[in-house]
Amino acid sequence: MSSEFGKNLRVSVFGESHGNGIGVVVNGFPAGETVDMDRLLYFMSRRAPGSSKLTTARKEADLPEFLSGIRDNVLTGSPFAAIIRNTNQRSGDYKGFEDTPRPSHADYTAAVKWNGAADMRGGGHFSGRLTAPLCVAGGIAIQILARKGIRIAAHLANIGGAADVRFPLHPDEELLDTLNSMMFPVIDAQRAPQMQQLIQQAAEEGDSVGGSIECAAVGLPAGLGDPMFEGVESLLSAALFGIPGVKAVSFGSGFDCVSMKGSEHNDPFVVVNGKVQTETNNSGGIQGGITNGMPLIVQVAMKPTASIAKPQKTVSLSKIEETELIVHGRHDPCIAIRAVPVVEAVTALVLLDLFVQRT
Amino acid sequence: MSSEFGKNLRVSVFGESHGNGIGVVVNGFPAGETVDMDRLLYFMSRRAPGSSKLTTARKEADLPEFLSGIRDNVLTGSPFAAIIRNTNQRSGDYKGFEDTPRPSHADYTAAVKWNGAADMRGGGHFSGRLTAPLCVAGGIAIQILARKGIRIAAHLANIGGAADVRFPLHPDEELLDTLNSMMFPVIDAQRAPQMQQLIQQAAEEGDSVGGSIECAAVGLPAGLGDPMFEGVESLLSAALFGIPGVKAVSFGSGFDCVSMKGSEHNDPFVVVNGKVQTETNNSGGIQGGITNGMPLIVQVAMKPTASIAKPQKTVSLSKIEETELIVHGRHDPCIAIRAVPVVEAVTALVLLDLFVQRT
Amino acid sequence: MSSEFGKNLRVSVFGESHGNGIGVVVNGFPAGETVDMDRLLYFMSRRAPGSSKLTTARKEADLPEFLSGIRDNVLTGSPFAAIIRNTNQRSGDYKGFEDTPRPSHADYTAAVKWNGAADMRGGGHFSGRLTAPLCVAGGIAIQILARKGIRIAAHLANIGGAADVRFPLHPDEELLDTLNSMMFPVIDAQRAPQMQQLIQQAAEEGDSVGGSIECAAVGLPAGLGDPMFEGVESLLSAALFGIPGVKAVSFGSGFDCVSMKGSEHNDPFVVVNGKVQTETNNSGGIQGGITNGMPLIVQVAMKPTASIAKPQKTVSLSKIEETELIVHGRHDPCIAIRAVPVVEAVTALVLLDLFVQRT
Amino acid sequence: MSSEFGKNLRVSVFGESHGNGIGVVVNGFPAGETVDMDRLLYFMSRRAPGSSKLTTARKEADLPEFLSGIRDNVLTGSPFAAIIRNTNQRSGDYKGFEDTPRPSHADYTAAVKWNGAADMRGGGHFSGRLTAPLCVAGGIAIQILARKGIRIAAHLANIGGAADVRFPLHPDEELLDTLNSMMFPVIDAQRAPQMQQLIQQAAEEGDSVGGSIECAAVGLPAGLGDPMFEGVESLLSAALFGIPGVKAVSFGSGFDCVSMKGSEHNDPFVVVNGKVQTETNNSGGIQGGITNGMPLIVQVAMKPTASIAKPQKTVSLSKIEETELIVHGRHDPCIAIRAVPVVEAVTALVLLDLFVQRT
Repeated sequence: MSSEFGKNLRVSVFGESHGNGIGVVVNGFPAGETVDMDRLLYFMSRRAPGSSKLTTARKEADLPEFLSGIRDNVLTGSPFAAIIRNTNQRSGDYKGFEDTPRPSHADYTAAVKWNGAADMRGGGHFSGRLTAPLCVAGGIAIQILARKGIRIAAHLANIGGAADVRFPLHPDEELLDTLNSMMFPVIDAQRAPQMQQLIQQAAEEGDSVGGSIECAAVGLPAGLGDPMFEGVESLLSAALFGIPGVKAVSFGSGFDCVSMKGSEHNDPFVVVNGKVQTETNNSGGIQGGITNGMPLIVQVAMKPTASIAKPQKTVSLSKIEETELIVHGRHDPCIAIRAVPVVEAVTALVLLDLFVQRT
Repeated sequence: MSSEFGKNLRVSVFGESHGNGIGVVVNGFPAGETVDMDRLLYFMSRRAPGSSKLTTARKEADLPEFLSGIRDNVLTGSPFAAIIRNTNQRSGDYKGFEDTPRPSHADYTAAVKWNGAADMRGGGHFSGRLTAPLCVAGGIAIQILARKGIRIAAHLANIGGAADVRFPLHPDEELLDTLNSMMFPVIDAQRAPQMQQLIQQAAEEGDSVGGSIECAAVGLPAGLGDPMFEGVESLLSAALFGIPGVKAVSFGSGFDCVSMKGSEHNDPFVVVNGKVQTETNNSGGIQGGITNGMPLIVQVAMKPTASIAKPQKTVSLSKIEETELIVHGRHDPCIAIRAVPVVEAVTALVLLDLFVQRT
Repeated sequence: MSSEFGKNLRVSVFGESHGNGIGVVVNGFPAGETVDMDRLLYFMSRRAPGSSKLTTARKEADLPEFLSGIRDNVLTGSPFAAIIRNTNQRSGDYKGFEDTPRPSHADYTAAVKWNGAADMRGGGHFSGRLTAPLCVAGGIAIQILARKGIRIAAHLANIGGAADVRFPLHPDEELLDTLNSMMFPVIDAQRAPQMQQLIQQAAEEGDSVGGSIECAAVGLPAGLGDPMFEGVESLLSAALFGIPGVKAVSFGSGFDCVSMKGSEHNDPFVVVNGKVQTETNNSGGIQGGITNGMPLIVQVAMKPTASIAKPQKTVSLSKIEETELIVHGRHDPCIAIRAVPVVEAVTALVLLDLFVQRT
Repeated sequence: MSSEFGKNLRVSVFGESHGNGIGVVVNGFPAGETVDMDRLLYFMSRRAPGSSKLTTARKEADLPEFLSGIRDNVLTGSPFAAIIRNTNQRSGDYKGFEDTPRPSHADYTAAVKWNGAADMRGGGHFSGRLTAPLCVAGGIAIQILARKGIRIAAHLANIGGAADVRFPLHPDEELLDTLNSMMFPVIDAQRAPQMQQLIQQAAEEGDSVGGSIECAAVGLPAGLGDPMFEGVESLLSAALFGIPGVKAVSFGSGFDCVSMKGSEHNDPFVVVNGKVQTETNNSGGIQGGITNGMPLIVQVAMKPTASIAKPQKTVSLSKIEETELIVHGRHDPCIAIRAVPVVEAVTALVLLDLFVQRT
């Protein structure tokens, strides 16, 4: 088992939702980089629950404590470790799922795999809570990349069928800044109300709704990444599928390429201000696994929250007979919202790994 | 740079399209397994070019030569190595792309990354030809998995907008056998003509068309894979994005989950013949990164072939000015067709890795 | 940078001597295994300083706090994390070494590598203190291996030239138990006084002395490990050289093989009680990288403590001129003593990895 | 199973002694580097058998054939692959060892591990022959390092108890050149006759003798390598123990440190020609896992050849009873001689990996 990713920047996440604490260890953060703590905590607040009525009412302080690898807010070069205490658990909410697994949660697969030993209270190690330490590490990576002229921002591309517009060919600083500052980040603000209404409606019905996220990394040099299995798509998809709830990852044109002709899909090379660029960006900034200097564009589909208030069919694992269960507790009606900074964090960590490899 | 994947089953692919040869090394194949050479060669023939007018007219014998790790058709336990000679190159077809990169090929990114040193004739290491050794290794993995009761089959899910039906909840042996025997594998045979017509039309226009592939792995036990970044989705997507032309990878409901409610998307547990199953399979057989015993369902989007006969805009890298290019040579109008066995091969190798880890 | 080792059992150590805390994350501990906390703390006490006048007078409580991967003393299968607070630092002791590096410490190399960003107080991440979390993880591995019939014990093979006897061909339970219970573990108790006298003498002179450790793992099945670079020697040496102060690692006959003839060195196969064994064990229990069922025998040389009280020559890095320094503070006159359980811990972790791979 | 090592420079060796061929794949060789083929073949000839009466009489052409990653003698940046055909096998020489394993060979452990499937003719994948492809890759690495001002040379430090002198503190170019050009490399030429006599005597007795090798890498910058388990010692020892017959690896003072005081062992810093150096080099050029700019010094013990002509005790695995065997065939009476370039090759590959990581 390995809740780790990365090669020269190695990220290791640990913790269970209702254990003593969760955390992250990063090997390979470049020494000498300063961490702006206010910016980091603001970044983490975007993921934190309780920030609006569209997210869960659970409160989590989620303040990271730094154990090593950082001194006076400067990275020291040795392994970075940060932990977050678990303090607001209501384990009672999760009683009984050991025998009657919640549909589309990991209760069943964990029960089979670890034969009852897993601590699955609150989703255990599979909980979305594990994305908090990812945001600690990723929030730092974002700051380091920014000093290299690389900006990362994501928005809610689609909620329950209501779509935002897609990124323009060259997202400008203002757009990226704006998205980074929004708790419900969309490019076309007029589209937000419909998306929010679908979420609210689902919440009122005791239901949930899916969503997708589009993330851009702007300012990347050409030449990052490698052919085949260490291409940027391979590295990034492997890390993004580690975020709980992700069902699909695509780049540039994504699944739309299926209905396209080569003459439409190919990105013609052009010269703009004396530099080689492409006229379109169906490649999503990557050709042959390697960045081409255009914005990296990745899309992620997040399934509707599996924890819903409606009664659901399940089975008793001990009796091997069908039964019904009700999941109590406080849950996000749409996990895509809080997943936006998580997608940015993971993208930043994967990209920073390519720089560590390079420098 | 690392054209490798896997953990306990390590697959390493090498070669350039117009170099002396291409090949594959596999560390970790289980000792004592027999390789049925006829089946392996048949499997490879499904990927081979020239098999129909819908694929490229180039002929490649592509017969693998086994150097080690196999004796009298039995795997010995030491590293497996197979090579394929390059014999049918027409390097003349590719002259000149060093200065004027082909749109949506890796010519430009390779030129930037390796500063002119790369051997990009015929696409070099980025060529689809590199999927032949993947099929040698994957074809063996498929045979080993079959002995464990695991069957893998893929079909063309969509070509240029024309869709096949999707896999049924429980694909039976007959369906899998049939798909494995087809050069244009579709579940609903009546849908093939329209798909083929779109390809032929693109070919006639000197153009190409995209496609998607859906692959099923049936018979997997519950409990394979790990949480987070070593989940089955992470491992499989990283390997699949290594196939040239892949733009998207999704599992189960994939991007459709975005418009779904939790109550629709959740897979209720039921008891069938005394066994725990799910009533639907939006999870694609994976929950929390771990197999749940239902069929594993993965979809892959393949972009339209980048090599088209139509004139295209590009730039001269030496002059930094715009120009036009024509790509000559013989190319598949739809790479998705020949990619079907490649997706099966890669899926088999990733899954076998999880067994090697286990046993 | 990667203070990690292992493949299917991944061990990651973090922390700096005078930072907030140190710790360990282990991915891959088998779920369901019970941890005997008393035994674990006893094991850790063998490494703890202050236990005798032969070791440093610094006191470190070094009580681990468990954050995840364990519940009610049972391993849960998700990543295991334990931390130890740093509470007894006297940073003043280490002032000034940033400019005048201590000979044979990592002060100089860290200064060059991280350009002054490293937190080198107390040796920083290079401190022997980092072996405490290794002992948390290794102490658990030892308990798990014991349930498989595998016992690990080490002794002080040589201190300053005064040698203990070597392990007998088949170390019995009693010997292993005895060594595991000694704070100054030697096989021939009569040899201890001379060894201890050399240490005391060095201490009185403000000096230090080197030592070597021999470690045995008894009860291993034949067939663990792999050829070439994943052989047991490769895996074990890589991990053992990660212990601060190790200068050499050898197996079985070690450097003695240099003066031996093949006819002396070869281990003849014999049948004992119906089982295949070898008559001698110059192989150290490993042939071709793979265990042969005989005791695994590994030796480790530990250099004399670099921190000595005598004045030493060094340079000022800012002035590039020679100067003298005195290292104050409390230091072990012989680090080999406290390294004994560390060698056992690391050996256990590497061996357990081979079992995780296997089962 | 994984006959691979390296991180950003990945080396994968395959082949069995009596199979079709052996070879090496390297991922990560820097693009654009030229390979001097004459020098490479000369380097390989130092490892080749049959070059003197002190080595085996077997002839192996061992000419590598390059399949990919190199074009017109320039590395292209994509995976490098080279193979060597097996042409001079006399499998008859090895008949029968499947039931009666040769002492101190891998016959027994391979039989247990792979249950009879392994192709152990000629030692199979465990054969010293596998070091030929290592020399192809390492010979190239040596050339690349030389362009960075880094020179690698090794000598026979001890044969059967007869010792050469050790490397001086700063080995000069002339010494390194001379060693690189000798088939029996020693620093003090007057010591060679005694060493050779011991080998010849062993050969005449149908016996063999052990030896040790000392290798120096001169010209390394300070700052290569990482703390703990990715220190230079860890990386190098793991790779060196992959060479068949290695029983011990040590750095700098090695096991001699055991009898030393700290005041003797510590390497005082001094200023020489305006540069920081150490006055002695007991550290072997590494402090805290990181190079300090002094020559890297590593020693390797090679056991006496296990294949000897004298009758030996073994067991019949099928009958579980003791018996005797005679190993026929042509064998090196001292494998240390031909291992000298192999140690250089492996050292170069490990060091080049650290540069690839850096640039």
